[in-house]
Amino acid sequence: MVLTVNPLKLINKDLKKLEFRLREFLQIPVPVLSETGVYLLEAGGKRVRPIFALLAGKLFNYDESTLFTVAMAIEIIHMASLAHDDIVDDSTLRRGRPTLAARWGKAAAVVTGDYLLAQAMQLIYGVKNKEVTSLLAHTSTEMCRGEICQIQASHDTRQSVHDYFYKIRRKTALLLSLSCEAGAVVSGASREEARVLRQYGQCLGVAFQIMDDVLDIEATKEEIGKPPASDVRQGIITLPMLIAMNEGGAGSVRLRELLTRKEKTTAEVAEATALIRRSGGPARCRETARRFITAACRKLPLLPDKPERAALARMAEIVLNRRS
Amino acid sequence: MVLTVNPLKLINKDLKKLEFRLREFLQIPVPVLSETGVYLLEAGGKRVRPIFALLAGKLFNYDESTLFTVAMAIEIIHMASLAHDDIVDDSTLRRGRPTLAARWGKAAAVVTGDYLLAQAMQLIYGVKNKEVTSLLAHTSTEMCRGEICQIQASHDTRQSVHDYFYKIRRKTALLLSLSCEAGAVVSGASREEARVLRQYGQCLGVAFQIMDDVLDIEATKEEIGKPPASDVRQGIITLPMLIAMNEGGAGSVRLRELLTRKEKTTAEVAEATALIRRSGGPARCRETARRFITAACRKLPLLPDKPERAALARMAEIVLNRRS
Repeated sequence: MVLTVNPLKLINKDLKKLEFRLREFLQIPVPVLSETGVYLLEAGGKRVRPIFALLAGKLFNYDESTLFTVAMAIEIIHMASLAHDDIVDDSTLRRGRPTLAARWGKAAAVVTGDYLLAQAMQLIYGVKNKEVTSLLAHTSTEMCRGEICQIQASHDTRQSVHDYFYKIRRKTALLLSLSCEAGAVVSGASREEARVLRQYGQCLGVAFQIMDDVLDIEATKEEIGKPPASDVRQGIITLPMLIAMNEGGAGSVRLRELLTRKEKTTAEVAEATALIRRSGGPARCRETARRFITAACRKLPLLPDKPERAALARMAEIVLNRRS
Repeated sequence: MVLTVNPLKLINKDLKKLEFRLREFLQIPVPVLSETGVYLLEAGGKRVRPIFALLAGKLFNYDESTLFTVAMAIEIIHMASLAHDDIVDDSTLRRGRPTLAARWGKAAAVVTGDYLLAQAMQLIYGVKNKEVTSLLAHTSTEMCRGEICQIQASHDTRQSVHDYFYKIRRKTALLLSLSCEAGAVVSGASREEARVLRQYGQCLGVAFQIMDDVLDIEATKEEIGKPPASDVRQGIITLPMLIAMNEGGAGSVRLRELLTRKEKTTAEVAEATALIRRSGGPARCRETARRFITAACRKLPLLPDKPERAALARMAEIVLNRRS
């Protein structure tokens, strides 16, 4: 059955090639950057965005070199945004290792991010596809808007579910959506096909972030490579928290009180996390994520019937069921 | 005599229009950004880069809307780089006011810079001139290289004059050079004319930065809008310091010792500054700057004989003689 296609197996060779090219690209002959670039690369990550770009592109009449360049550029933008996000969120750990800002200082993290962004732009110009170039500029702008909303909304327990979606659409969904759309656009997809993939990426990105926020509450340090409940600690208000706070009852009131505090003791973080776990938040988040996954896949049948299409459907399931 | 053209008078109307359009552009309907963008704009600055872009473009067959867009984009890139530089240099004052990072926090400064950069890219794409787009991506990359060298070289008194020039070429000269070249390129300059303007901008940019570094040593707080000797305090090793340290004698030894210290008392900063002032550093820097100014102007006669050409020559003089 085509639905059992293993997406990672399908593009395993491509991913290895991509990894090699990323490493080559990040051998930057400049002090500090030569270390920070490779450090970000080795921090791992699942190369989620390149996977989508490659799968989307391979549905059509793709040119390997162009498609790879786009996939690389998007991963580099993602890496740059991680370098800057860790300054913005004041995080010291990511995926079990010190963040770039924690290890090399904020100055180096700012410049590394700027440098990688500039390099990604250069890669994208090289593709000479106006649509992708303009998509990218638009995406960068909107990602910043999402980031600024996150800063603004930190510790603000009065924010609405609407605010949450505004933020994650920009912070996460947009780059995933761009990955799918750009992969398709440079590979000769029709306007309609590109639109299907954009929407797929957007819905999937929202589901991805919701699940990320659930995992931050439910998973163990071993599973996610950082102490859980980092959102609680940093005052980032996520969907499971919003649901838990809006349930009513003494638990909700206490949770709101705890989450409003800018400084929390370890005991307070644990108490807030327990309150969210015990609430209906996580389960309702999973439902919501499932609805987005269903929406993501709805129009996939409009795309060419290739193994990559089945792989995209399977990726959606993986996002929903991931534990790390 | 054409050489007495007052550059600012010549493009006074254009600058007013630019100021208006920048302000309009920075009315960003996003929390925080709506304040930080305008704050950066109101911090003033002399709009040096737009002045060069406008003068360069007006030498040729320019399209007003395109030329203005380029000038605006470059000023916005400059503003973005200031927002990030102040994090990198850990500065709290710029032009007499708290830096963005000092007032809104580093997180807001990172995102404001990222947002403005993305916006500038969008403006530049809009111009639909491939050469300018690729010039810009290249410039951004190289500017980061300069910035990283500055981080690396801070407090490092063993750095060479060569290191200094590598750094300021990228940190300052490149964007000035881009201003001149991009203004010309979008206005139909020939390849040779664009090259003349690029080199003019580069030499002028180097002279500009050298004079900036001299002023930081010699000027008063009132003149430059920030406490003088901020480079000494921050451990940024500039040309006047390098010359003073290399003169030999007890003063040089003492200066080197002081500049190597990462933490300096107010008395130590004052002592180091006095040693540099008394050395031959400032005078030799002025000579060096003058040589770059001469080089900048050498090929101007190859450009169309218009008032803007005389204005460019005059700008070079202004850079050399500025007191603030």
